Amino acid sequence: MNKGLLIVVSAPSGCGKGTVLKEILKDENYYYSVSATTREPREGETDGVHYRFYSREKFEKLVSDNIMLEHAEYCHNYYGTRGDIVEEMRNKGKDVILEIEVQGAMNVMKKCPEAISIFILPPSVRELERRLRKRGTEEEEVIAERLEKAIEEIGYAPRYKYIIVNDALENAVDDFKAVIKAEKLKAEYAGEILDEVIKNA
Amino acid sequence: MNKGLLIVVSAPSGCGKGTVLKEILKDENYYYSVSATTREPREGETDGVHYRFYSREKFEKLVSDNIMLEHAEYCHNYYGTRGDIVEEMRNKGKDVILEIEVQGAMNVMKKCPEAISIFILPPSVRELERRLRKRGTEEEEVIAERLEKAIEEIGYAPRYKYIIVNDALENAVDDFKAVIKAEKLKAEYAGEILDEVIKNA
Repeated sequence: MNKGLLIVVSAPSGCGKGTVLKEILKDENYYYSVSATTREPREGETDGVHYRFYSREKFEKLVSDNIMLEHAEYCHNYYGTRGDIVEEMRNKGKDVILEIEVQGAMNVMKKCPEAISIFILPPSVRELERRLRKRGTEEEEVIAERLEKAIEEIGYAPRYKYIIVNDALENAVDDFKAVIKAEKLKAEYAGEILDEVIKNA
Repeated sequence: MNKGLLIVVSAPSGCGKGTVLKEILKDENYYYSVSATTREPREGETDGVHYRFYSREKFEKLVSDNIMLEHAEYCHNYYGTRGDIVEEMRNKGKDVILEIEVQGAMNVMKKCPEAISIFILPPSVRELERRLRKRGTEEEEVIAERLEKAIEEIGYAPRYKYIIVNDALENAVDDFKAVIKAEKLKAEYAGEILDEVIKNA
């Protein structure tokens, strides 16, 4: 059995990344990596489902024990990815999906050059603005801030291996599946297949 | 418009490569590169369709003018690929398919590191033997020779970027399409897309 892939997915807020991943995760061979955090659980959040909720001490211990694959601090809370769980799942043959922001993604790519990194783009910044506005709940100022952040994040897109434009959910999902299929057809993963083809001579 | 891809396809005889390519070539964005040769046209062969038939002098001139992307001599005849036509079609945005044997493929990969190389495998050497036998027209000796050559060629498979097992035509065609789709989603081809996403801000 081949080791599972490590798939890093980033996208600006409002790109429909969550909807794309929800479709992808219907295939049980994927494992969605649940982030660890030191922030307090919010109403309705379940430990191990939405986040792995840790104390500051526990999180810092995981960092110093080199167990966190990547981590960062935002607003006085840590967020990160447990590398040991990622490895465990990949060794079981699962393709592990990390849904992380650009800085975390850069760190994972540096540590794991084999990572399949995918950046999901909106069809245009104008469309992204429309989608953010459509939610109707945000202040003008918040929308402007999000757009500015989105443009900044899009600047990182060329550093990812693949770029998918989410113009329509079905297309984006097809693109995602094609990327994973192609990655599994790469010659470096074909050792076992070659052995079998030759063995059954 | 992005430049078209250069796709190199090899497979041992009897792997069904022709049938796979026939399906793929139904998409008009592909251009099938017709090999050049100095051998005499056989009954029913059309110049420019089955081969580009050249005189020995003309072929040697193309080689010395550095126009041949790759070439080799078999049984006192030259066979090769015109690089100028490949370039012309790629510049028109066509994805160019070179169906060539392993030595020619190695040469193209060396000259064009951007080439997408695909090796098509039979499900097993035993199955390949069965397929060769099924044709019913070959002598026992010819089958043994072809099998030996197939095993030798399969030894080159790990040097290709992608390996596709032709266990069933539909699967092999899907795999091929996924590889090409994924290659076009690579960040290095996304320059124009990124410009457009940002421009429509």
